[in-house]
Amino acid sequence: MHYDMRTAIYPGTFDPITYGHVDVIERAAMLFDKVILVIAINSRKTPLFSIEERLEMSREALAHLKNVAVEIHEGLLVDFARTQKAVAIIRGVRAVTDFEYEFQIALMNRKLEPEICTLFLMPNEKYSYLNSTIVRELARYHQDISEFVPAVVARKIKEKF
Amino acid sequence: MHYDMRTAIYPGTFDPITYGHVDVIERAAMLFDKVILVIAINSRKTPLFSIEERLEMSREALAHLKNVAVEIHEGLLVDFARTQKAVAIIRGVRAVTDFEYEFQIALMNRKLEPEICTLFLMPNEKYSYLNSTIVRELARYHQDISEFVPAVVARKIKEKF
Amino acid sequence: MHYDMRTAIYPGTFDPITYGHVDVIERAAMLFDKVILVIAINSRKTPLFSIEERLEMSREALAHLKNVAVEIHEGLLVDFARTQKAVAIIRGVRAVTDFEYEFQIALMNRKLEPEICTLFLMPNEKYSYLNSTIVRELARYHQDISEFVPAVVARKIKEKF
Amino acid sequence: MHYDMRTAIYPGTFDPITYGHVDVIERAAMLFDKVILVIAINSRKTPLFSIEERLEMSREALAHLKNVAVEIHEGLLVDFARTQKAVAIIRGVRAVTDFEYEFQIALMNRKLEPEICTLFLMPNEKYSYLNSTIVRELARYHQDISEFVPAVVARKIKEKF
Amino acid sequence: MHYDMRTAIYPGTFDPITYGHVDVIERAAMLFDKVILVIAINSRKTPLFSIEERLEMSREALAHLKNVAVEIHEGLLVDFARTQKAVAIIRGVRAVTDFEYEFQIALMNRKLEPEICTLFLMPNEKYSYLNSTIVRELARYHQDISEFVPAVVARKIKEKF
Amino acid sequence: MHYDMRTAIYPGTFDPITYGHVDVIERAAMLFDKVILVIAINSRKTPLFSIEERLEMSREALAHLKNVAVEIHEGLLVDFARTQKAVAIIRGVRAVTDFEYEFQIALMNRKLEPEICTLFLMPNEKYSYLNSTIVRELARYHQDISEFVPAVVARKIKEKF
Repeated sequence: MHYDMRTAIYPGTFDPITYGHVDVIERAAMLFDKVILVIAINSRKTPLFSIEERLEMSREALAHLKNVAVEIHEGLLVDFARTQKAVAIIRGVRAVTDFEYEFQIALMNRKLEPEICTLFLMPNEKYSYLNSTIVRELARYHQDISEFVPAVVARKIKEKF
Repeated sequence: MHYDMRTAIYPGTFDPITYGHVDVIERAAMLFDKVILVIAINSRKTPLFSIEERLEMSREALAHLKNVAVEIHEGLLVDFARTQKAVAIIRGVRAVTDFEYEFQIALMNRKLEPEICTLFLMPNEKYSYLNSTIVRELARYHQDISEFVPAVVARKIKEKF
Repeated sequence: MHYDMRTAIYPGTFDPITYGHVDVIERAAMLFDKVILVIAINSRKTPLFSIEERLEMSREALAHLKNVAVEIHEGLLVDFARTQKAVAIIRGVRAVTDFEYEFQIALMNRKLEPEICTLFLMPNEKYSYLNSTIVRELARYHQDISEFVPAVVARKIKEKF
Repeated sequence: MHYDMRTAIYPGTFDPITYGHVDVIERAAMLFDKVILVIAINSRKTPLFSIEERLEMSREALAHLKNVAVEIHEGLLVDFARTQKAVAIIRGVRAVTDFEYEFQIALMNRKLEPEICTLFLMPNEKYSYLNSTIVRELARYHQDISEFVPAVVARKIKEKF
Repeated sequence: MHYDMRTAIYPGTFDPITYGHVDVIERAAMLFDKVILVIAINSRKTPLFSIEERLEMSREALAHLKNVAVEIHEGLLVDFARTQKAVAIIRGVRAVTDFEYEFQIALMNRKLEPEICTLFLMPNEKYSYLNSTIVRELARYHQDISEFVPAVVARKIKEKF
Repeated sequence: MHYDMRTAIYPGTFDPITYGHVDVIERAAMLFDKVILVIAINSRKTPLFSIEERLEMSREALAHLKNVAVEIHEGLLVDFARTQKAVAIIRGVRAVTDFEYEFQIALMNRKLEPEICTLFLMPNEKYSYLNSTIVRELARYHQDISEFVPAVVARKIKEKF
């Protein structure tokens, strides 16, 4: 039988991408025909890495996933989802308080575009403590972060500090 | 292009099925090629409706969804998922405390079968107060429940009380 | 100026009434012209105290509040609220998980009767650990509970155990 | 019979007022003889709208509620409550994490002024995703926000962006 | 220098003891001079294993920890703590909702005995999904549980089912 | 018998130290042979009090506890813990949302240094509303804060505003 292609998007800041993100997108890549990691440009935050660096690191970190692409978007997420004909927005949830915030965003996105569904996925519990803020903090104090981020990120971070 | 068929399962007690469940499964049916609602037999609970009644009501309530089936299962959920070659277990989450309990079950299921992913979906916020317990409670006091459950369930419940 | 009389109801099992409940109803009695504590009859629970005992203890414990009455009700709470022309249902919330459960009940009650509003009040933080289950547990092991419940309850409990 | 007039206050930043706020204050206006929406001046935040704009928009949005006034206050909320002889502080809670933060503020306010009670009210669940931050975000991307805010706010926002 | 001996107790039902419990008590055994695992007798629950079986399994599972003892207690926990001159009650918390319930118990215990402090410890995150209920459930369906419980428990469970 | 000396550390910003902090450290001082309050230097926050002022106030506020020291540290907390041969990191938790954030930090610290255990302690419930932010806010509006902070802090704050 033939089935329609289904695309999902996985938005975030990815400053930088961690193994927690990689774990979520690997699962998503098994559920959908195509998954797009979307680096959201947020002009009111000052990131550690530029958009170009984040794009490059994410692409290298996900090169092993044939049905995953990395894109940049500025503006409302649902606009990007519509142009990609995405059926789902993927969000990783590690903890209950994550979830509550995500819930409100998801309800608003559904209001703006009822056809696109938000899906919550759990990363492996071994990454439940991991986020980009903690990685940046560890890097600042010259800790070894190779267990937490893809090799390309560890290398780039070493150059930064 | 051709894509693999992907199946998801949506387990629960469904005693009885409500519009909240129907809302979740309608979303799931857009994301996967096939969705199976699984009525889990739990010998330690005394349900209001027999397994046969729940099967019949769920089938009638979901008859409009061509890629949705209804099955019964006794035993570990991951065993059922494996026999169906399911890639995902769908869970509806209406609230944060729902989610915490679901999280623990999902972690255990992943431990038992790492290839199957648990996905959390939100029902429409207009169903965020709705569950089968409340429906049974309303029915017990002869309240009109036609806004909360499919017609077949409303009819069956009227016969019961 | 003249203002309309406003009535609120404060439902619960009150098995038995504690100083935490008294604290909530004292606050409610300052906000509304009349407050009715409603002892809900729940045929599926086995209470420690009979309905009559709970009614008597609650009345004695609240005798100092001139605008508070104690009543018994079996059935849907919103039906009772309607017959009393109540504008509000009062609920005490001591903790976040309390609140989540209360939230779902409140949403359903609003669905059933949009004119009646659920209000959440916090008891004094010195009662944040206190509930009827803990009082019954302490009584079972012959602990002094006079700090947790009105004198009439302490006396009745001593007779029970 | 005659009853004392009872006043409640409803504090916030209201930058801008949304239909979620309006929903809460409409309920409060049925429970109390007078309700004052208080726009709190917080010198450490940079609002989108000036105090004067927020005052004007809130007054226009609430003009249909005869027992509701809009005021501005800088300083401790309990000082304002005392000068207004308010018996209650109204807070809208949409979600559990909202509630936890609110709980701490309410405990501190009670410590500062035990006679004034904090009441938690839920807005309609259709506004559970809605807050001023999201409205400002949507406006920034030129989305239609007429479903989320009173007409006066929609008009003012269109002028801003 | 000489220091006073400090004892902590670790109460629970332990029906049966899991690797999650063992992980918590191993940590506690590094913090205190003596740790007593207390199997609480609760006459209102029907356990899978008898008190004697739970005592025997827990002792065998903890035999490698020289400063850990296993005892049985019926009645209020703080009474047991007092007779043991314990300075602390240890509780494992895997998740936020665990914690809220634990919080209320801890507040009540502090009220009953202010000198004894409740300490919360996290088990290893690889056990965050694990509890005795899930172990009994897996055993019921003849799943391999050797990864979740000490060898003595796995053996005893095999005999049971 | 002789026992090894055990040290715990209690990290924070302490800007300023409150009676809630004092309450936690008094409990910790009964559980461990030595407790070190560590004022963490965080270059990305602008504190109200300088490091030197915070050190001086904390020392004076804890002078009555013979086994408590106050130190300053910049960098990763686990590095400080290692140099002090600490067996435990103490964290006060007043509420569930506190706890969730603390949980992630604790998991990361365990990852970095598995030998050091994080312990959660509850301050007295009468301090459950209290934190340094609220104290600074009250001071800003010239409220009496002598009930919330040690005398040395009240004095210093009076000088500031």
